[in-house]
Amino acid sequence: MNAVVSAYNWVPDFAQGLVRDMRVRWALEEAGQPYRSEPIAQQDKTGSANRAKQPFGQVPAYADGEVEMFESGAIVLRIAEGSEALMPRDPAGRARVQTWMFCALNTMEIPVAFLTELNLFSAGQAWTEGARPRVEGWLRQRLADLSTRLGQNPYLDGDRFTAGDLLMADVLRTLPEAMLAEQPNLAAYVERCTSRPAFQRAMAAQLADFTGSPPPGWA
Amino acid sequence: MNAVVSAYNWVPDFAQGLVRDMRVRWALEEAGQPYRSEPIAQQDKTGSANRAKQPFGQVPAYADGEVEMFESGAIVLRIAEGSEALMPRDPAGRARVQTWMFCALNTMEIPVAFLTELNLFSAGQAWTEGARPRVEGWLRQRLADLSTRLGQNPYLDGDRFTAGDLLMADVLRTLPEAMLAEQPNLAAYVERCTSRPAFQRAMAAQLADFTGSPPPGWA
Repeated sequence: MNAVVSAYNWVPDFAQGLVRDMRVRWALEEAGQPYRSEPIAQQDKTGSANRAKQPFGQVPAYADGEVEMFESGAIVLRIAEGSEALMPRDPAGRARVQTWMFCALNTMEIPVAFLTELNLFSAGQAWTEGARPRVEGWLRQRLADLSTRLGQNPYLDGDRFTAGDLLMADVLRTLPEAMLAEQPNLAAYVERCTSRPAFQRAMAAQLADFTGSPPPGWA
Repeated sequence: MNAVVSAYNWVPDFAQGLVRDMRVRWALEEAGQPYRSEPIAQQDKTGSANRAKQPFGQVPAYADGEVEMFESGAIVLRIAEGSEALMPRDPAGRARVQTWMFCALNTMEIPVAFLTELNLFSAGQAWTEGARPRVEGWLRQRLADLSTRLGQNPYLDGDRFTAGDLLMADVLRTLPEAMLAEQPNLAAYVERCTSRPAFQRAMAAQLADFTGSPPPGWA
């Protein structure tokens, strides 16, 4: 069977194009694997049907006839294991890609998520300005270190795009443009990754699923 | 060759037993794989020799003669791929374990890291009290959802311990005891995981490497 990926049928404007099923759609597009999305309404996400697939009441969940999973990073790994377009077959190459995948979702996404908290979810709250120097300093150090390692390579593993780049670019593209621009090679890297046709198709597909209405009570 | 795992030869008291090489040591112990640690001094972690192995100037890095890696989650995955003690061989079972591994280090560790920031690294700063209701609320929801999914199973995948439990327990064991105790099945789960002989051996081995001195200027 073709893969099935859960998604939302509506999100607020700021979240459009950023929901985590993007990572899975992008990986499937890079791998050339057909799939269908299963968009759900916001008011159904914490219901028992979705929680059976995704215990935290989120998206994406994934099934392909052989496995059932959640966690976008794990799903991308599953897809990458089946496609040399996302991960080389030799053990040393696989290990490097797995390194960058966890690096993206742990070493990098933790401080990125802190900044998103300050700038978006808790925006305007007094405490966020007290936290900002610490959070931005931490994140800037991580970005500087990543920039040094990337150097002038087009991708983290050298000349070829992998699932590690997919997750890294998906994390970094959420940063404020001015902060990313402080590391010009990282800004160019994110642009290089997100201008790939597979990313563009994934983005169009996520946006096309937003045909629903806000949940009752949404202001 | 036996695996080689980088570690520190000194950390402050609060960090002893919590450095990320614990995850790797624990996985190697569960898998029954001999290894040796390579402890480095704090003042050397950001030097070029360590950055060549670990671009962020941290530990652990890992090598086993076939691969060279960093990121504790990725290294645990590498070890689990080679040991049925940590991951079943069938695709559906592997997928479930990979799901829990990424869940531990992304869905769960992001809010856990926020709380650690408030309680430890930025402890006493005025902004932390403003942030606390939001951070604790977010984390409590995640813990409640995880508790519901775990139910009365001994481990996340049912009856058997996997690499998913290893990472999940390693993340959750850093929480304040009172918060974890709000979900009694999670508290019992963490106790179940960390009372395993392999965890105890890993802990003893990390502690035994702390034979060095604080870096110059440490107060």
